[in-house]
Amino acid sequence: MTKRKLRMGMVGGGRDAFIGAVHRMAARLDGEIEIVCGAFSSSAEKSKLTGEDIYLPPERTYGSYNEMYDREKRLPGDVRMDFVSIVTPNFLHFDPAVKALENGFHVVLDKPMTFDLTEALKLKEVVDKTGLLFALTHTYTGYPMIKQAKVMVERGDIGTVRKVHVKYPQGWLTSKLEDSGQKQAEWRTDPKRSGIGGSIGDIGTHAANMAEYISGLKITHLCANVNIVVEGRLLDDDADILVRYENGASGTISASQVLSGSENNISIDVFGEKGGLHWSHEDCNSLYFSQAGQPVNVLRAGVDYAYLSPTALKHCRAPSGHPEGFIEAFANIYLDFAYTLHSKLSGETPDPDYADFPGIEAGVRGMAFIETVVKSGKSDRKWVEFKV
Amino acid sequence: MTKRKLRMGMVGGGRDAFIGAVHRMAARLDGEIEIVCGAFSSSAEKSKLTGEDIYLPPERTYGSYNEMYDREKRLPGDVRMDFVSIVTPNFLHFDPAVKALENGFHVVLDKPMTFDLTEALKLKEVVDKTGLLFALTHTYTGYPMIKQAKVMVERGDIGTVRKVHVKYPQGWLTSKLEDSGQKQAEWRTDPKRSGIGGSIGDIGTHAANMAEYISGLKITHLCANVNIVVEGRLLDDDADILVRYENGASGTISASQVLSGSENNISIDVFGEKGGLHWSHEDCNSLYFSQAGQPVNVLRAGVDYAYLSPTALKHCRAPSGHPEGFIEAFANIYLDFAYTLHSKLSGETPDPDYADFPGIEAGVRGMAFIETVVKSGKSDRKWVEFKV
Amino acid sequence: MTKRKLRMGMVGGGRDAFIGAVHRMAARLDGEIEIVCGAFSSSAEKSKLTGEDIYLPPERTYGSYNEMYDREKRLPGDVRMDFVSIVTPNFLHFDPAVKALENGFHVVLDKPMTFDLTEALKLKEVVDKTGLLFALTHTYTGYPMIKQAKVMVERGDIGTVRKVHVKYPQGWLTSKLEDSGQKQAEWRTDPKRSGIGGSIGDIGTHAANMAEYISGLKITHLCANVNIVVEGRLLDDDADILVRYENGASGTISASQVLSGSENNISIDVFGEKGGLHWSHEDCNSLYFSQAGQPVNVLRAGVDYAYLSPTALKHCRAPSGHPEGFIEAFANIYLDFAYTLHSKLSGETPDPDYADFPGIEAGVRGMAFIETVVKSGKSDRKWVEFKV
Amino acid sequence: MTKRKLRMGMVGGGRDAFIGAVHRMAARLDGEIEIVCGAFSSSAEKSKLTGEDIYLPPERTYGSYNEMYDREKRLPGDVRMDFVSIVTPNFLHFDPAVKALENGFHVVLDKPMTFDLTEALKLKEVVDKTGLLFALTHTYTGYPMIKQAKVMVERGDIGTVRKVHVKYPQGWLTSKLEDSGQKQAEWRTDPKRSGIGGSIGDIGTHAANMAEYISGLKITHLCANVNIVVEGRLLDDDADILVRYENGASGTISASQVLSGSENNISIDVFGEKGGLHWSHEDCNSLYFSQAGQPVNVLRAGVDYAYLSPTALKHCRAPSGHPEGFIEAFANIYLDFAYTLHSKLSGETPDPDYADFPGIEAGVRGMAFIETVVKSGKSDRKWVEFKV
Repeated sequence: MTKRKLRMGMVGGGRDAFIGAVHRMAARLDGEIEIVCGAFSSSAEKSKLTGEDIYLPPERTYGSYNEMYDREKRLPGDVRMDFVSIVTPNFLHFDPAVKALENGFHVVLDKPMTFDLTEALKLKEVVDKTGLLFALTHTYTGYPMIKQAKVMVERGDIGTVRKVHVKYPQGWLTSKLEDSGQKQAEWRTDPKRSGIGGSIGDIGTHAANMAEYISGLKITHLCANVNIVVEGRLLDDDADILVRYENGASGTISASQVLSGSENNISIDVFGEKGGLHWSHEDCNSLYFSQAGQPVNVLRAGVDYAYLSPTALKHCRAPSGHPEGFIEAFANIYLDFAYTLHSKLSGETPDPDYADFPGIEAGVRGMAFIETVVKSGKSDRKWVEFKV
Repeated sequence: MTKRKLRMGMVGGGRDAFIGAVHRMAARLDGEIEIVCGAFSSSAEKSKLTGEDIYLPPERTYGSYNEMYDREKRLPGDVRMDFVSIVTPNFLHFDPAVKALENGFHVVLDKPMTFDLTEALKLKEVVDKTGLLFALTHTYTGYPMIKQAKVMVERGDIGTVRKVHVKYPQGWLTSKLEDSGQKQAEWRTDPKRSGIGGSIGDIGTHAANMAEYISGLKITHLCANVNIVVEGRLLDDDADILVRYENGASGTISASQVLSGSENNISIDVFGEKGGLHWSHEDCNSLYFSQAGQPVNVLRAGVDYAYLSPTALKHCRAPSGHPEGFIEAFANIYLDFAYTLHSKLSGETPDPDYADFPGIEAGVRGMAFIETVVKSGKSDRKWVEFKV
Repeated sequence: MTKRKLRMGMVGGGRDAFIGAVHRMAARLDGEIEIVCGAFSSSAEKSKLTGEDIYLPPERTYGSYNEMYDREKRLPGDVRMDFVSIVTPNFLHFDPAVKALENGFHVVLDKPMTFDLTEALKLKEVVDKTGLLFALTHTYTGYPMIKQAKVMVERGDIGTVRKVHVKYPQGWLTSKLEDSGQKQAEWRTDPKRSGIGGSIGDIGTHAANMAEYISGLKITHLCANVNIVVEGRLLDDDADILVRYENGASGTISASQVLSGSENNISIDVFGEKGGLHWSHEDCNSLYFSQAGQPVNVLRAGVDYAYLSPTALKHCRAPSGHPEGFIEAFANIYLDFAYTLHSKLSGETPDPDYADFPGIEAGVRGMAFIETVVKSGKSDRKWVEFKV
Repeated sequence: MTKRKLRMGMVGGGRDAFIGAVHRMAARLDGEIEIVCGAFSSSAEKSKLTGEDIYLPPERTYGSYNEMYDREKRLPGDVRMDFVSIVTPNFLHFDPAVKALENGFHVVLDKPMTFDLTEALKLKEVVDKTGLLFALTHTYTGYPMIKQAKVMVERGDIGTVRKVHVKYPQGWLTSKLEDSGQKQAEWRTDPKRSGIGGSIGDIGTHAANMAEYISGLKITHLCANVNIVVEGRLLDDDADILVRYENGASGTISASQVLSGSENNISIDVFGEKGGLHWSHEDCNSLYFSQAGQPVNVLRAGVDYAYLSPTALKHCRAPSGHPEGFIEAFANIYLDFAYTLHSKLSGETPDPDYADFPGIEAGVRGMAFIETVVKSGKSDRKWVEFKV
């Protein structure tokens, strides 16, 4: 391992940007990463203020990512940033990511990966070509119990997978919040900034990613009922989707942002021939394992539980009964990225348990998912093939 | 009110028939109904043994329902049965129901109502013609908190309904139980006895009924993914369905009997413009009411809660914190039937809160639901219209 | 088994008496018991009306229990009641129970058993002398998962018991309800009708009974903080108690009726060297089994769960996932009593799984518990010995 | 506010010290604190390794706290540490804390505060004399919903407090873990390092602190049953305590580390005349508010909930439905300390919502609690007065 903290720059995440602050907390938590610079806003003034908020030296707060990449790469190797974290709206993912890579910086990118599938495929080319490290923050895969579920499916604890149900209910777009000037709502409901997917891009991609991650199966066909529930909105705010998987398994994905009073309780049920696994965000430190004719087993996060898989254990920070949550899950993506980058920089083989973070493939599939759902939503045919 | 217990005969429900025993407990619970006779099995010997088990006089245990109707109608008016409860497998619903009605006996019938839609429509004609009382045991509508949910939607507590999700997961047919000689599994997986629907008939009809009952909306279109998961089975054991309602609301219904380790936890989420209502069978005495920006309210069953609607209150038997469950919900159907029959017999207007039990219309819709789901399952088109 | 329903008379349980109606539902549920007569109220008029409510023939509704015993015993053996269920307030338990026994009638009695310990000991003498069957309705021991817990402790699943915590929070006496004319509150707060214990008699005895039943241990010492929280009340409405058991185990019992918003969620945690068992009334069909370093196991009620003990299974009526509750638990006491009485009447050995209902010993210990708690409440010494 | 991160040194927290790592994560999370130096172990070698683990420059890793204080105070004002975080076992709290203060460093100290009450009172003198900032990490008061509960009691939402129940069950000392070489268990069960309290010091003080914090009431009397459950142990590992509060309210505190399979689910119920508040660690983002005759309200953490008090809101980092847990609660103590220290250093009045962290008074009461519980445990009298 490199004997130093890794140095991170940030693109986006100015004041009022919810997710930027979460990325910073996640990056800081484990002490492997130091935030050294940022281009936090398209407004140089705003960027400067955010830099001050987080105590950056003024000379490391930049007015644009182009400026940042340009200046940082000229800094001495023991000073300049190692990687950039890009937390802007979707339409501002591709260019800063590509340029970062082309300038030799590794990349952490918020989801959905790009504005459209075309960009995603191009970005993949750049990632592949540069060979640099790339992570996509599908946060939910950072939860230890999601990792535990994945391992349990992999090792056959529930037998051949038959059924995957994912529900992602939110309520914050129940009314036309975007008309009130709320920034989060504004860009997420704007096709120019979000792309062709509204809720299916913002949260549907998380749901699809979780389904494929845990089941270990690829979605092959979709049948989507895509809705604009709130009048006057331009992008979908609600979708229910029938899903088929490569092994013949089936299921549903429901994602909506207009379910009044819903918080953010994404949940998944995966059933196989021999048992079922059940997880919900509200109870994120528990994994329920059901088996025919047996008491349900409640597996719990905690460094003291030897029954957990090494992968899950390595992503817990405290003994059982000390709840870890969203920021910790997010931090696990950063921790995985950092450990893998440490290994890469020092020429060591990364620990596969830490290398298990969502990357460019997941990002491409996410963008393909959005396009396929939109296509299916408009189709009179029942099944639309999902392929990349 | 008639000053006596109502007298019930039973068709089906011999030894080993789970649901027959439940019907009897439900009928007994409130002391309004006396079980006076029965034709419990197609085997006269079995019928006799069941009659003995429940302490019927030998002369009131019959070898067939035809015999029962024939003999009972000749008994004096203060002795003969008032109504019959029919708890046989689906293929044995129509004939005993029609003949009961034609012989002047009111009818309680288990669901799904008949073998197919044709029978259902014919039965409706007989019910309409005879004017006799008819109840279908969609148990879940007997739960006080389901009734409370219905009232709350009706009075606008959640605003215009947008979304209805119903999940009905069971696991008892996870493996090919019907090959082991288990009677329940045998007839439910046999197209000759169950009709064209497997799980969608057995439990899907409950789910659809609950969705329409609470939302107050009719389903207009379906898009079904209907599966036979366990190899060699002849009827569906799993289905996921996209649903559209008359007011433009949408949602899903998932019903499966092959979800390993699942018990019987039917659950529903109904969302409107202003709020959401949430109920699950496992926690049947609670109703969760979510509203944007507000603490969730947990409404609870109990005769002491003045905040409950009269309809809900009349279907509770104990103060809050004294859990009532499945048998009580079932008993509420019988209680409603009994009170309404009392009124009918004595020429009084029935209390509408007690007259709110599922009847012939619900039964016809249930059979149409099965046919529509099967049709949709085979169709390449996305939407199939649901009409009766 | 006797080839007939058992015939029950009732003392108390007139209109407005909550628990009387519950007793009747419980007695009816399983079809083993027929309610044939009653002396439902000290007012002959009220008694008559209640008799009519439940469709008794007028000649079997009596103006007093003395009259009832006198008349019933002269009826032919195939008509007269077999046993009496006494559901009056505490001060009216002893005399009707003793007289019933002396007249040859078996007895089911509500708790707490008598007005005071002296009466309890005298009643025990009569029970012992007459050899008639006697049951005390400590409802909670009727729950299948409570029985399962008892068996698991007995067979050593949790090792030697170390700790027993029981909490019984109610809120219905939060304000001075007895001044409003509410009958339940009136007699329960009146020392002339309740005896020396208020909440500790009404619900504390349930808690103590559950602790001893599951742990299989006798309480040996108590240290009680007994309170009258609502001003002007004459009997305790709240108590917290430190408890020591015969094997050196310790724990607490808290029972209160002034905890605002509390329903009736009695809960217990029993810990041994190897594991813990956890049950709460709100979730009465689940039993949580915790063990060091292991996933918690959730055992569930249901006739289909072969992992349950025979004792538990025999007290379930439906497959898992069909919630049974308070009335079913109550009915289990009646079922046990009925099956045991059937055996007794026909000279057979009763099934010990059904003979496991609370009887005279539990009743005596309950009355001793009340006296000991009151004594401890007034004492400056820490520990007061609990002995009968 | 001072325009820089605050600089923290650490005493204790070497490799394998669970709580040291948690303190560091908590300090880092919000980016207000930089860890600049440490004396992580009494072994200079171990200290050095820990310094390397967290990427400290070698010259800022010290062999002892004396050395650290000595050297740091000679560093320039813009380099040297501002405060020290002391995370050693109890017997090593007093000296490093006193010396830090005497050398002009502010102090964050783990609980229980000192080895005994005498030390606590002396430490208070030093804190008072130096006027430096002092925080005690009673983590649980850092939870937003605990703060919300406190505010709700304060503003009268539940009326006059009547009852406070706190349970703190752990299971990790179920067997004699200290004999296996586990460091945490070793010192916590060793009177020379822990002081006279075992579990009552380690977790009982948290429970008492939470009770007083939320209720706003001081404990005045205790009656404790203090036990050594695991044979051969020298300090209590289990205690049940009756409690009386200054306003006449009463309740219980149970704290145990030998409850097999228990994790760390501290829970509290506070009841007043008008309602009750309910919180448990397992479900730390919810606060249940019960009121007589009303639906329970479930308040939830989240920056988007305007119904929360400002105090609670300021201690949330994400919108509702993004679970925050133990590390965030811990970080809230550090955040409060940091904001208050920022204000202090820049001569501003601290925001009272951030100044609400446990300090020297809470620490003194904690030590007095331990002494009173031990005294009561040995006493034959029921009540022992709790005074400082």
